[in-house]
Amino acid sequence: MSVTDAFKRVLVGRKLASTQLGETLLPKRVALPIFASDALSSVAYAPDEVLITLSLAGMAGFAFSLPIGIAVGAVLLVVVMSYRQTVHAYPSGGGDYEVVTTNLGPTSGLVVASALLVDYVLTVAVSVSSGVQNAKAMMPFIQGHEGLIAAVVIIVLMVINLRGVRDSGGIFAVPTYLFMFGIGVMVIWGLLQIFVFGHPLRAATADYTVVGVSRYEPLVGLGMVTLLARAFSSGCAALTGVEAISNGVPNFRKPKSKNAATTLLLLGCIAVSMLLGILALANLTGVKMSDVNSGSYFVTPGGEEIHSDPVTVIGQLARAVFYPGFPIGFFFVITMTMIILFLAANTAFNGFPTLGSILSRDGWMPRQLHSRGDRLAFSNGIMTLAGGAVLLVLIFNASVTALIQMYVIGVFISFTLSQLGMLRHWTRHLRSETDPSARRVMQRSRVVNAVGMVMTGLVLAIVLVSKFIYGAWMALLAMAVVFILMRAIHSHYAEVAAETTITDPAEWVLPSRVHAVVMVNAVNKPTVKAIQFARATQPGELEAVTVDVDPDATARLVKQWDDDDLSVPLKVIDSPYRQITGPFIDYVRALVSENPRDIVCIYIPEYVVGHWWEHVLHNQTALVIRARLHFMRGVMVTSVPYQLESSARLATRYRRRELRRPRR
Amino acid sequence: MSVTDAFKRVLVGRKLASTQLGETLLPKRVALPIFASDALSSVAYAPDEVLITLSLAGMAGFAFSLPIGIAVGAVLLVVVMSYRQTVHAYPSGGGDYEVVTTNLGPTSGLVVASALLVDYVLTVAVSVSSGVQNAKAMMPFIQGHEGLIAAVVIIVLMVINLRGVRDSGGIFAVPTYLFMFGIGVMVIWGLLQIFVFGHPLRAATADYTVVGVSRYEPLVGLGMVTLLARAFSSGCAALTGVEAISNGVPNFRKPKSKNAATTLLLLGCIAVSMLLGILALANLTGVKMSDVNSGSYFVTPGGEEIHSDPVTVIGQLARAVFYPGFPIGFFFVITMTMIILFLAANTAFNGFPTLGSILSRDGWMPRQLHSRGDRLAFSNGIMTLAGGAVLLVLIFNASVTALIQMYVIGVFISFTLSQLGMLRHWTRHLRSETDPSARRVMQRSRVVNAVGMVMTGLVLAIVLVSKFIYGAWMALLAMAVVFILMRAIHSHYAEVAAETTITDPAEWVLPSRVHAVVMVNAVNKPTVKAIQFARATQPGELEAVTVDVDPDATARLVKQWDDDDLSVPLKVIDSPYRQITGPFIDYVRALVSENPRDIVCIYIPEYVVGHWWEHVLHNQTALVIRARLHFMRGVMVTSVPYQLESSARLATRYRRRELRRPRR
Repeated sequence: MSVTDAFKRVLVGRKLASTQLGETLLPKRVALPIFASDALSSVAYAPDEVLITLSLAGMAGFAFSLPIGIAVGAVLLVVVMSYRQTVHAYPSGGGDYEVVTTNLGPTSGLVVASALLVDYVLTVAVSVSSGVQNAKAMMPFIQGHEGLIAAVVIIVLMVINLRGVRDSGGIFAVPTYLFMFGIGVMVIWGLLQIFVFGHPLRAATADYTVVGVSRYEPLVGLGMVTLLARAFSSGCAALTGVEAISNGVPNFRKPKSKNAATTLLLLGCIAVSMLLGILALANLTGVKMSDVNSGSYFVTPGGEEIHSDPVTVIGQLARAVFYPGFPIGFFFVITMTMIILFLAANTAFNGFPTLGSILSRDGWMPRQLHSRGDRLAFSNGIMTLAGGAVLLVLIFNASVTALIQMYVIGVFISFTLSQLGMLRHWTRHLRSETDPSARRVMQRSRVVNAVGMVMTGLVLAIVLVSKFIYGAWMALLAMAVVFILMRAIHSHYAEVAAETTITDPAEWVLPSRVHAVVMVNAVNKPTVKAIQFARATQPGELEAVTVDVDPDATARLVKQWDDDDLSVPLKVIDSPYRQITGPFIDYVRALVSENPRDIVCIYIPEYVVGHWWEHVLHNQTALVIRARLHFMRGVMVTSVPYQLESSARLATRYRRRELRRPRR
Repeated sequence: MSVTDAFKRVLVGRKLASTQLGETLLPKRVALPIFASDALSSVAYAPDEVLITLSLAGMAGFAFSLPIGIAVGAVLLVVVMSYRQTVHAYPSGGGDYEVVTTNLGPTSGLVVASALLVDYVLTVAVSVSSGVQNAKAMMPFIQGHEGLIAAVVIIVLMVINLRGVRDSGGIFAVPTYLFMFGIGVMVIWGLLQIFVFGHPLRAATADYTVVGVSRYEPLVGLGMVTLLARAFSSGCAALTGVEAISNGVPNFRKPKSKNAATTLLLLGCIAVSMLLGILALANLTGVKMSDVNSGSYFVTPGGEEIHSDPVTVIGQLARAVFYPGFPIGFFFVITMTMIILFLAANTAFNGFPTLGSILSRDGWMPRQLHSRGDRLAFSNGIMTLAGGAVLLVLIFNASVTALIQMYVIGVFISFTLSQLGMLRHWTRHLRSETDPSARRVMQRSRVVNAVGMVMTGLVLAIVLVSKFIYGAWMALLAMAVVFILMRAIHSHYAEVAAETTITDPAEWVLPSRVHAVVMVNAVNKPTVKAIQFARATQPGELEAVTVDVDPDATARLVKQWDDDDLSVPLKVIDSPYRQITGPFIDYVRALVSENPRDIVCIYIPEYVVGHWWEHVLHNQTALVIRARLHFMRGVMVTSVPYQLESSARLATRYRRRELRRPRR
């Protein structure tokens, strides 16, 4: 089983049919990086956003960065504890959508689904934007073209995913470990230099003064509360992706639940360490951030004002720690940060169509999305996701600070509802459980999930209030639109199902006989094939019909028909206005109304071609006629394909693509 | 018969089937305006372009305007005389394409067709641009938005033509007569005032001095020749549309040829009078033009330079003649000029798809264009034409001076080849004709056509040489592309015809029996209908097949199948990767290879829906499967449509549209 498969299965939240065949289960050391890239990548931008928000209060703000980091870390650990309960309760893998649908009903499930779909788009936009922002630390020429470059990266990811490249196992594991390694070495080496070797490190922005926005200076009262709330909300972006493991329990080696829970805890500890390590080192080296768009800016010791976006926190730290003596360390950290961020975006390209498939199974999305083999549907999902993300990075010029205002909400809606679902789950199970020790475990789990729910609910409220006017409203609006759309699709399917349910036994009366009509416009192999096929079905009546749009051509046709003795009568329909469709439809309509108990079967010879442009030259009339005939009851339309030589080319290509198709 | 029909028939160059029914033939007084709008409208811009080109030589140039006008008028009359021969030779209506194809062979015919297709696009662009330029005389605020306004006008024309509004007879006749009347009164009243009442009229630009381009000042030598040649070439735009009557002979009252020839002569005389009248009056009133883009400009008596495009010639004349005492006359002339120009553009919207239909009949264009009833094909033609014209007016900002460089070439290619064709026609007929008086008539006709050919050939050469670098190359390139494309289509159809010609008697062996497979994914009315229909054809074998993408759903389906006792065996196909298409195709492929002499007939239940968005929700999988099955020999695919209630809406609308459809 490839890692991509594992990933998808993880995000699906239940076993796919394909998992039955010779699957290999993941040891913790492989599972960790697979599930971690999304969660860990967010520590690349969460510290930045905390510092950027605090910069609005000027120099006074930065003092709060570490306390906020600790608060975010605390929430992260609570969420990890909560999902450890989910891992035990749903060893078969319970995605948030599944947990909520099962425990709170389909409407709540749909809320979660809407939130997740919108969040996938934002994950791509935010991760790629952050990757591009980090790349600026080593490639300053990117400055001014961030949006465009981010868009190109997204399109490259899209193309890779559309082609369905088969990933090797290493693609996720190696960079994730290298990223963890890079950040770890940077933090530890930095701290060692400062505290052990007594060698004070100074970030590039260490000597700058930050001028904030008057509204937040001095930092007291309501202004302080709202600013700290916003900084905390932005920092909570570090929590995105934490839930992934809970959906992937079946992919772990036995004991699955226990291994998954351990990995989850490990992931949480690593994420918190990295987040706090970065924030601590940023404090020690004097890293400062500013936000040009919101009005904070740097002043150099010489009194010069700097009104441009500073380098990312990781960029500044890597430079301060490594650059003077060991520049390769600097490039390594930046490159790994960039790669992990693009990988995180890539996970959304797997998750989005997968969630679409589940929603389709439940009737919330067009039915054809359910079948994963349908390349077309799968491609549509990938292109929708990429299109949305490209739009976002272009509109917001790949500014993480702008995009992050919309992010996080979806994640916390999903967290909160999922915890509420777990609460219900335990309560329901407690009703039937009698074993005292099992009950005790359940009650403890229920307490953990309750704490989780309260905590995530609180964060959700803080995020909503502090970010609503800054962009959260757009995310909520998008979720509402997606929600309403999916409801509409569902009720449409429900109506159709009601309409097509078999109720009337009269429905079962067999038609008396078949009247076959072969549509003809020339005497050639396709026509002969259609006649032969029609005759093979031994219809009650069989006739060939042609529409006379050109008297000369028709006369030639009739003559050739008689000469070749095709032993099927040819009927010529008049067409005073040189139309084909109208007169033919009228003729069939007359047939149907004359023999209401018969079936009329129209045989249309069709050319099968090998190039897209050949479609323009063939079958167009047949296409229109078939579409129109479908409105007539008692009529069926049979295409008798005739394969032109050029079609062999395309047939081979389809066959090859099928054999090569990644096993999704 | 409506006038639109007449128009189309005219442009087709041969009788349509529809003309058999209760047609009323046109008296000369109605035929004239129908065929004249295109030809007469060009006198609205030809004088402008002559004066604009001459302005490059400064004040010295304008003296040549009347001689050039007379030369253009002479060519026009020669062309009229030539086409009078065509009218007599082809009383059934011979369009240039028909005449050339018949007499010079299909390749020459295709050259004419390419030229005409490109010219239709240019007719729309030039006529609408000129209409907008004229409108500026009374609505100066148009200045600076010409391209946009012209694009809007073209789009309005497109929408009107797409909707297929049924024109009343008056729509062409009335404005054409009013335009002729307006220009006539203006010229006569102007001349009367100058010569009889001794009241000198002065155009707004009469007192300006024109500064030309140094290359042409003084106007001597090669510079003079090339400039006069360019001015003459631009003036020849007045000839566009003259050939229209020759195609419309069948629509005239008897004696058709004679009436048509008379009308043609009448049209020629009116056009020449208008052209010369306008140029003469322009000379007398001191109208001057300048061309900002090419470098000529005005200098006021006070010495001020004016670097903007002047008002059109008709605009200046109408103001000088009418404005001081009778402003309504001014508005009348401008309005009628505008309307006649838009009507001229409208004729291309009829001519383009009509020519497309003829080309399609001869296998040069996609076959479905031949059937006029096919709304889709007809719409494509209209939209292609409008799209091309909109592009042109936007690129060239509706500058007639820029567009006219590309125009005229197509017309003269068509003129010249048509005359050459007529020459061949007479020569061929002379070979068999023995009656001396008939021979004399033919010989005289041949002389007229020979003169016409030499004259138009000469003009074509002048136009090519004088305009090539100014834009004619673009028109030629476009024609070459169209030519090559049509050749490619033709040879594709020829290859397909060769491939599908019946040669092998083994082709005629009847298949042994039919193996029917009904594709099933639920037990509902559409499925039952498909099974019933399949059973009605009494196949050798009948089975239902479902693909197992979701074990739970499949289990439910199998249970319901057994409960309802559908008396057809249901086969479940495994799909380890949750694909539908792949496993189903594999199953059918196996069936075919096991029984190579059988026919496999796949029955697919299809939902017929009433809204476009419902298509997204239904039949998508069926669509993909049908497309793939078409590549397999020995397989036919039958759609068994199930009409959802919503489909009734659309069925009614189609039916209504059919009854309302203009009789093209």
